[in-house]
Amino acid sequence: MPRPSVKEQLIEAAVETLHRQGFNATGVQSIVDAAGVPKGSFYNHFESKEALGVESLDRYWQGVLRSLSILRDPEIPPLPRLKAYFRSLDEILRKRKYLSGCMIGNMATEMADQSSLIREHLAMILAAWTRAIESCVKEAQADGSMRKDIDSKSIASFLLNAWEGTVMRGKVDKDRSALAAFEKVVFTTLC
Amino acid sequence: MPRPSVKEQLIEAAVETLHRQGFNATGVQSIVDAAGVPKGSFYNHFESKEALGVESLDRYWQGVLRSLSILRDPEIPPLPRLKAYFRSLDEILRKRKYLSGCMIGNMATEMADQSSLIREHLAMILAAWTRAIESCVKEAQADGSMRKDIDSKSIASFLLNAWEGTVMRGKVDKDRSALAAFEKVVFTTLC
Repeated sequence: MPRPSVKEQLIEAAVETLHRQGFNATGVQSIVDAAGVPKGSFYNHFESKEALGVESLDRYWQGVLRSLSILRDPEIPPLPRLKAYFRSLDEILRKRKYLSGCMIGNMATEMADQSSLIREHLAMILAAWTRAIESCVKEAQADGSMRKDIDSKSIASFLLNAWEGTVMRGKVDKDRSALAAFEKVVFTTLC
Repeated sequence: MPRPSVKEQLIEAAVETLHRQGFNATGVQSIVDAAGVPKGSFYNHFESKEALGVESLDRYWQGVLRSLSILRDPEIPPLPRLKAYFRSLDEILRKRKYLSGCMIGNMATEMADQSSLIREHLAMILAAWTRAIESCVKEAQADGSMRKDIDSKSIASFLLNAWEGTVMRGKVDKDRSALAAFEKVVFTTLC
């Protein structure tokens, strides 16, 4: 296997450190240290820490996108699919002992007002994430398993935002109770 | 009116700067500058920025507690009271043009894994906030205006977490759409 490029090493190290520590607590020095590359190489590849922040967010989002494939699985009816999707995220958080939370939510609360570049990127990511959930919600409404008295876009946006708040609470409480409340309330009230 | 003490000036300045910029983006220097006190005085009053962070969170929480009085207003039935409560928060965010978000949510995503002192404080605050919402949910369930097939604690915890995620999304999108989806979904599905 070819060695990853310096740029690739920097992005991988940044996803890990920015997700775990946040943007402002992480210096360029600790990213280059984690990547095992000389500091001088950083500015050959990125204009600024902010630019690397955006590329790291995109990389993290690629992982979220892969997890979204459950939502399109034609083998499972749409409502159980939606439940399986949030269960899969739940499982990831449990394995990580509720550490770090969601990098997208973390960057949103920390950076939306500090960097318009990051904010615009977050808005695009959250809109795309909402659309993926909305497709599944629409299917569930069409097959009669989900209530139809609320438009699919409001439900999808609400679900994603509620999920992000739930992840935040799990990060504070360090247990599954917020996630259990999410599953119970969402799948009782939307069906 | 007596002049506020140096300690008080520091706490007030810290609430404002930490809420707006976040914990790690705010140095002790910028807090003392905002307070208009000499830097040397900081460590006469606080052991560390973390200790001031905790006192600032408590001060912010006192404001949240005052806003919670709507939830106990005997003049209004419990369900409209709950709706009025979230409307009042919504109004605050709109006036602030969705800047800064909620200091409690911001500190949760940024600091829960960086400071056990701050994390424990956040857990207490979020638990107290949940209990205040739960009291109103119980009343609404008792008078028949809210569904009873989900326990009041799960509903209250879910509502608060969903709200925090909604505020986060508003901070990214800089518009009311997330708040509108929250109100529509919550007050259609829980009634």
